Amino acid sequence: MRATVFREGHDAFAAEAVLINPEGLEHSRTLMYDVAPGLNIYEGWGAPDRPGLWSFRIDTWSDPWATWKHDARLKIAAGVDGELMCEKGALLLERAAQGANFTARRPPSRPSYHKKKPGKLAQVELAAAIETLRDESLTPAQRLRVATSSTIERVFELSPLRDYLEATVRYPLQVDRKTALYGSWYEIFPRSYGAYVDEAGRWVSGNLRGAAESLDRVADMGFGVIYLTPIHPIGTTFRKGRNNTLTAMQGDPGSPYGIGAADGGHDAIHSELGDFDDFDAFVERAGELNLQVALDIALQASPDHPWVKEHPEWFTMRPDGTIAYAENPPKKYQDIYPLNFDNDPEGIYQAIWDMIEVWISHGVKIFRVDNPHTKPIPFWQRFLYEMRQAHPEVLFLAEAFTRPAMMETLGMVGFHQSYTYFAWRTTKEELEEYFVEVAEKTAHLMRPAFWPTTHDILTPQMTTGGITIFAIRAILAATGSPTYGIYSGYELVENVQRPGFEEQIDNEKYEFKPRDWEKAEDLGISALLTLLNRAREQHPALQQLHQISIHPTSSPDIIAYSKHVPARFSPTGEDDTVLVVISLNPHEEVEGTVYLDPARVRPTLAAGKNSEGFGPQGLRVVDELDGNSYTWGYENYVKLSPWERIGHVFGVIN
Amino acid sequence: MRATVFREGHDAFAAEAVLINPEGLEHSRTLMYDVAPGLNIYEGWGAPDRPGLWSFRIDTWSDPWATWKHDARLKIAAGVDGELMCEKGALLLERAAQGANFTARRPPSRPSYHKKKPGKLAQVELAAAIETLRDESLTPAQRLRVATSSTIERVFELSPLRDYLEATVRYPLQVDRKTALYGSWYEIFPRSYGAYVDEAGRWVSGNLRGAAESLDRVADMGFGVIYLTPIHPIGTTFRKGRNNTLTAMQGDPGSPYGIGAADGGHDAIHSELGDFDDFDAFVERAGELNLQVALDIALQASPDHPWVKEHPEWFTMRPDGTIAYAENPPKKYQDIYPLNFDNDPEGIYQAIWDMIEVWISHGVKIFRVDNPHTKPIPFWQRFLYEMRQAHPEVLFLAEAFTRPAMMETLGMVGFHQSYTYFAWRTTKEELEEYFVEVAEKTAHLMRPAFWPTTHDILTPQMTTGGITIFAIRAILAATGSPTYGIYSGYELVENVQRPGFEEQIDNEKYEFKPRDWEKAEDLGISALLTLLNRAREQHPALQQLHQISIHPTSSPDIIAYSKHVPARFSPTGEDDTVLVVISLNPHEEVEGTVYLDPARVRPTLAAGKNSEGFGPQGLRVVDELDGNSYTWGYENYVKLSPWERIGHVFGVIN
Repeated sequence: MRATVFREGHDAFAAEAVLINPEGLEHSRTLMYDVAPGLNIYEGWGAPDRPGLWSFRIDTWSDPWATWKHDARLKIAAGVDGELMCEKGALLLERAAQGANFTARRPPSRPSYHKKKPGKLAQVELAAAIETLRDESLTPAQRLRVATSSTIERVFELSPLRDYLEATVRYPLQVDRKTALYGSWYEIFPRSYGAYVDEAGRWVSGNLRGAAESLDRVADMGFGVIYLTPIHPIGTTFRKGRNNTLTAMQGDPGSPYGIGAADGGHDAIHSELGDFDDFDAFVERAGELNLQVALDIALQASPDHPWVKEHPEWFTMRPDGTIAYAENPPKKYQDIYPLNFDNDPEGIYQAIWDMIEVWISHGVKIFRVDNPHTKPIPFWQRFLYEMRQAHPEVLFLAEAFTRPAMMETLGMVGFHQSYTYFAWRTTKEELEEYFVEVAEKTAHLMRPAFWPTTHDILTPQMTTGGITIFAIRAILAATGSPTYGIYSGYELVENVQRPGFEEQIDNEKYEFKPRDWEKAEDLGISALLTLLNRAREQHPALQQLHQISIHPTSSPDIIAYSKHVPARFSPTGEDDTVLVVISLNPHEEVEGTVYLDPARVRPTLAAGKNSEGFGPQGLRVVDELDGNSYTWGYENYVKLSPWERIGHVFGVIN
Repeated sequence: MRATVFREGHDAFAAEAVLINPEGLEHSRTLMYDVAPGLNIYEGWGAPDRPGLWSFRIDTWSDPWATWKHDARLKIAAGVDGELMCEKGALLLERAAQGANFTARRPPSRPSYHKKKPGKLAQVELAAAIETLRDESLTPAQRLRVATSSTIERVFELSPLRDYLEATVRYPLQVDRKTALYGSWYEIFPRSYGAYVDEAGRWVSGNLRGAAESLDRVADMGFGVIYLTPIHPIGTTFRKGRNNTLTAMQGDPGSPYGIGAADGGHDAIHSELGDFDDFDAFVERAGELNLQVALDIALQASPDHPWVKEHPEWFTMRPDGTIAYAENPPKKYQDIYPLNFDNDPEGIYQAIWDMIEVWISHGVKIFRVDNPHTKPIPFWQRFLYEMRQAHPEVLFLAEAFTRPAMMETLGMVGFHQSYTYFAWRTTKEELEEYFVEVAEKTAHLMRPAFWPTTHDILTPQMTTGGITIFAIRAILAATGSPTYGIYSGYELVENVQRPGFEEQIDNEKYEFKPRDWEKAEDLGISALLTLLNRAREQHPALQQLHQISIHPTSSPDIIAYSKHVPARFSPTGEDDTVLVVISLNPHEEVEGTVYLDPARVRPTLAAGKNSEGFGPQGLRVVDELDGNSYTWGYENYVKLSPWERIGHVFGVIN
């Protein structure tokens, strides 16, 4: 929680961040600290412990005890007004003894400050200090020392005196379950699992049962979310062929985003994939393996979707009486009819709501929404608000690769998580800037998901650099954001683009793609993903968004950053710090120096508890990727190469 | 007016900034332009024409005509859907002919869009275009050309089709009279005017009559505001002597900020300065010379102020029964009792209100408020709000040299103008950053005043560099901000600090300081100020805050910037541009190149009306300081020196 806090004049003041639970009760109070001296920006940290509509407010007050200490020390040292300052101090201690804890211009709307007299022992201590302050046989300096002893300080720490107490309004703070922020996703096209070519040379589709069998492998790698591209019936009218050709050949399965056929739409399952029993079995098996199921929702229809017959008014009618298909003139997407939300907002809303309820009733708690930025914001605002009330555990990921204003607004109106520009941030400067952007500038709007590739995205960077660039990008994604995702086949370094397009050739969107996972073992990416997911599970620092620090290095090819979570917000009850050092060069060996500032590696040092920097023994770190341990300090030489070691993911031990 | 504007999907949209006058009626509408492509930031400009509580809102809509043109051009060129697109266009033209100007999800709260059919001539043109669009003897491309002719474009320009019209709430926009933003101030201590040492060696005070006689000189230099430091009776208890010594000598006049004596407080005039008749005569003479009078208000009391006897409860009582004087421990300011607003907020409010009313009734319309940041913000918020209702012409300048949060908040709660950090911004980088900061980042919070020196401020920079640094800082102040101010004596290059303090030695606060203005003529600063004030009067570009551009130069000692006002906001009805080029080095000759980007010198070029840059004849400029004219272009060599010419203030002719 952050606030600009200041007051008129020169007296001391303080601010407390008050976290309020969904029932409206105070959950915790944290004294706020000035994080940008001169700019009056104060921060305090609190951690809600369950989902719901929390809120917070800031309480501020004038601090007469701090003001008195400041003035008394200066004036008594200068020999000015000694008696007077001692008497002023005695009066403040008397006030504390009476429990006259606060004054306010207006009583606070929620009176959480009670007249509470200090306990018996404190009373005795206060009385003794008051007597001392009035003891003219002592010098003012001697009296001051007694009155500001640690014993008396403790009394004021427990019940501070607050004058002119003010409280802000309450600011809403929507808290979602942990998977909204932290998750390791794995994306599959279920039909590829178990697909084969039969004796007649015809493809036979894989199905949900086959996909369920593959879940062990995904769980073994340590993923936590299994994301299925759409599983609904696929239209045949204008069905796309392989590599997005306009005419499907015999046996081409079509794009799962061309949703809807005679046997059903968004609330149905493609018959070749199985039925709801198969789906339930898939969800059950996933649950046994601690995998949550995420389903893809693409709000559009093939010309064969039941909605087209039942509700032609939900689409756009052209002057010639036909329904408008999707276009990006002069390109045509005749296999897709976009919904026109303006034509019947209420009817479409209900249909989508009911459809989502079907999947929730079959155990789906995460939805990945395809292109939400082509639907009206007011639709999402209402839908996500009402969905949060009805199903607070259900999460929605926005697949909006578009301009910042739209992406941030989708987060603002309720999407729990967002895809990001990560795939296009490739240089050291771009990555450093982007890591800080998602952690600090847009964190209140969007929870970021980092995907090195998806079925739609294969950037030019990934097409050279072989296995190594796949390793680099996996490490960056898994450590740069609390949620990251891998599209099935990443382990096989599938890195050939369809000419002229930044996506894979022979794209799984338009064909079956069974894979040889044994070959993946040889390439080592599966093993790397397993290590990364284990490091993510073991390190709370990698499960949160804030408190990333970028560290300078001497090489434009070496990036270094660390994430830190302080003990009081860590589920382990202990500080956790992870330091990542990676080469961004997949082609050559690079060497250089990493410069570490102790206060930035372990921000707890900055709070003034400890000023010894890395201490005499240096910083002990262990590489989560190979178990090697090192002692690091202010300047650290590293040599990284594609053939030996491309980077370190260090857990910091001391 | 600025807004983030975007929509779902790919259709064209538009936004208009609607300026609303104090009566709630639409004053003007301006189409907004995307000023940061990719970031959806739109700007539109409007100019209120009188003071009061104006407001604005942003209207946005989907633009079917622009969407159709975009799609039709692409598709017809690609040979796709030609007939269909022509028919879609015909339907839009039919709609325009019927005057079906807008659709809205919700009707706009203030329906300013009327069904207005185009005029007869337009109807004929629309009908012809509709017929053409349906004429199958023509190709779609031929028909498109007719339908998007300039005649038809003009019809849509006059009455655009707006779909899904939305209006924001109204945002308040407090408009004050021009002097709130633009003014040339001159500060005096009236008692120095006519002060002399008599035959017995005793000082005799100057007075308001003497000060009135000096007004011709001030007016001749072209100043518009004459600012008087406090003119009230001065206390004698703990009166300060020369150079802020603790004990006043016989005849020392005391600080005018030690306000109040037996013969009156803030609503009285020091008897040595004259009476209210003298004050009225001063105001009248100032008025004859087009000088507005600004009065200094320091809300504090000397121990002899009538308030101390009548309202001891307005001050802070110490435990020993004495009233607390001002302190910055261990320093004491025993000649000053601060008011304690918390003790009797209502009583103090009324006393201050009544006191201000006295001065308003004697013709004062500007107050310079001393140290407003030591008084509670809620006091100022109420006071300035109610003062705006009672006396909309009265302005208040905040003398708060403190942290940004407080300074910005004082502006936010109603101060019309603020002192700034200008005096402490000395390097090229600091000045460039600060000019942009006051013009863009804080312009909505604070109207800035640039003062090179005041009676309290003489920065180290001013103490070396002699006359030249005084010239440099005067040019920077007069051209960097629409309001600037000069403290009397600046013309005499009074540049010696009291040792250890960043203010003048023999400070006028504590003694009489009659000056020899003939000597000033020799130094040339008066002549420079006269030229600067004349340039400010002649150039609307120097009278406004926005639209400053910094231009790169090859020398760290040469700063170049320009200000521009477009014709439609210029009182002359023509574009106005001023280009300033100054050396920041008061010691040596410097040379270098000034690089000009035409679109930044004359932003009207950027709007696309004209793309010829500076044109074949270059940019013709005339130096307002010496009348020389030059032809400038993209790269311009300059040589500037203390002994010949330290800078240029160019009016741009073409």
